[in-house]
Amino acid sequence: MTLIDPQLTEIDHVAIAVRDLDGAIGWYEQTFGATVDHREVVERDGVEEALLKVAESYVQLLSPTRPDSTVAKFLDTKGEGIHHVGYRVADCGATLKAVTAAGARAIDAEPRPGSRGTTVAFLHPKTAFGTLIELVQE
Amino acid sequence: MTLIDPQLTEIDHVAIAVRDLDGAIGWYEQTFGATVDHREVVERDGVEEALLKVAESYVQLLSPTRPDSTVAKFLDTKGEGIHHVGYRVADCGATLKAVTAAGARAIDAEPRPGSRGTTVAFLHPKTAFGTLIELVQE
Repeated sequence: MTLIDPQLTEIDHVAIAVRDLDGAIGWYEQTFGATVDHREVVERDGVEEALLKVAESYVQLLSPTRPDSTVAKFLDTKGEGIHHVGYRVADCGATLKAVTAAGARAIDAEPRPGSRGTTVAFLHPKTAFGTLIELVQE
Repeated sequence: MTLIDPQLTEIDHVAIAVRDLDGAIGWYEQTFGATVDHREVVERDGVEEALLKVAESYVQLLSPTRPDSTVAKFLDTKGEGIHHVGYRVADCGATLKAVTAAGARAIDAEPRPGSRGTTVAFLHPKTAFGTLIELVQE
């Protein structure tokens, strides 16, 4: 039963936490012929990311830039691997409101700037069957 | 440096291991207005899956149908959360050959039937920066 309009317009990205960003980029290049579309240090989150384009989606490789970043903690406790999934939405603020009204717990109370000029908000894995979900508005 | 032609044509799916498949489906329906496009028991893998369509990709919710399935073991050791990522490829056998030649370790030595009539092969997380990767040919 669908109670709200469809919110997810695309898998924006699958984020993969890695220790060696250049090594991981090289692996995706040499294994899959993938290429880096965008690379950015996101100071606020303490990460450097590389985006490899796959159709309209991205593989987002993430490495920590400082030991207190959430990605550094993830690597310390869980090791390298899939960190979160980002879904593209038309209006991050409207979706955030709708999904929290539906009972999802937000990490970000309000949308905030993401990488490559996006507006984003994270949802807590607790109410999302263990999955850290990012809403991404381009 | 790209050594081979681009192999990944789409993020086919993000697979999420859950204990309660109907509960998880209900959550995605009521939270995101997502709808089930396909549902299937895959006896060989000991899982029941539900595919929620997001553009040309899927969110694949996975629950074990028997205690010795790999998804049951994943849930026992890691709990609910993202289990693997599936990338769509034009020719699963050709990509499997290319990526193993490039040094990736395969779990499936040969392509095999997947759900919804696909042909698939899994790559081992060991050589893939901790990520279980599925190659999916429609």
